[in-house]
Amino acid sequence: MDLYEKTIESKLIYDGSFISLKVDKVLLPDGKTSQRAIVLHSGAAVVVPVDQENNVVLIKQFRKPIEKVIIELPAGKLDKNEDPLSCAKRELEEETGFRAQEFIKLTEIYTTPGFSNEVIHVYLARGLSQGSSHTDLDEFVEVFKVSLDEAILMVKNGEIKDAKTIIGLLFAKMFLEEQEYKG
Amino acid sequence: MDLYEKTIESKLIYDGSFISLKVDKVLLPDGKTSQRAIVLHSGAAVVVPVDQENNVVLIKQFRKPIEKVIIELPAGKLDKNEDPLSCAKRELEEETGFRAQEFIKLTEIYTTPGFSNEVIHVYLARGLSQGSSHTDLDEFVEVFKVSLDEAILMVKNGEIKDAKTIIGLLFAKMFLEEQEYKG
Repeated sequence: MDLYEKTIESKLIYDGSFISLKVDKVLLPDGKTSQRAIVLHSGAAVVVPVDQENNVVLIKQFRKPIEKVIIELPAGKLDKNEDPLSCAKRELEEETGFRAQEFIKLTEIYTTPGFSNEVIHVYLARGLSQGSSHTDLDEFVEVFKVSLDEAILMVKNGEIKDAKTIIGLLFAKMFLEEQEYKG
Repeated sequence: MDLYEKTIESKLIYDGSFISLKVDKVLLPDGKTSQRAIVLHSGAAVVVPVDQENNVVLIKQFRKPIEKVIIELPAGKLDKNEDPLSCAKRELEEETGFRAQEFIKLTEIYTTPGFSNEVIHVYLARGLSQGSSHTDLDEFVEVFKVSLDEAILMVKNGEIKDAKTIIGLLFAKMFLEEQEYKG
């Protein structure tokens, strides 16, 4: 079965600095038409900063859409034409004040393929050192450290609910375990 | 530090059947103001259907926002006033044709707390039996089975990129391993 949906019409509803919204009229595989509301996002990078003692750097941040302060990994949106690795380095330092010697790409994820084109590139950062913290002007975050194992427990018991953070932590744990196993 | 952002003004930009969009003017912790574009979503449920041979039921689906056919777990949006468990049961049968004797809540996740209020409730489904498949009218999916271990490999090698699917599979694996260990 050909599952592809051809765009017949596309209408930009909202054009913002962070996200935009368009509504596409599409031709379905059975010849009928339907509408798809699509949030346009430039993509993002998320970083799992793990220090030599196997502590991970996390942040607490207020998220207006859910009206809650939640625990996340440092992350941020790609600037225009920015490559994901540069974004990862920039966001790590902007949000936590840390720099890293090594960035290892763990995976990339679609957060909400049903209504948005956002892709998040997931990096492990090793060899941390203190840089200078200069948070984005309208971003307020609290930085803290826990052991990676403790962070995994917070994933399992539901204390950490942010999808990119869950995936980053679980991938980092698998990667570091395999590395240890190898040698 | 109080990280809360108070809403000063809220404007509905788009009101759709699947998502809506509002733009809030907020008061930041430092007294300045900023804008937050927020996608409103009713929430969703995702199901990890694992049969007695430890095979998991997956679907292939075209996703217009990313213009790709991708591999996902069965999932869907909550109907108005629908509880997440009912949604999980309904979507499992609608998308795959399977029913399940047991649904176990694994966790719940925020897919994109930076720009949307979507929460996805994650369930493991056991005791599968064939029900009747009646796909949503404008949804076209292909159903297939792989072993849970193979699905985990597809997560690790990046063949599966959908966030809720990655989290569902990794949580199901952890849950089933712990269950085996215990008993």
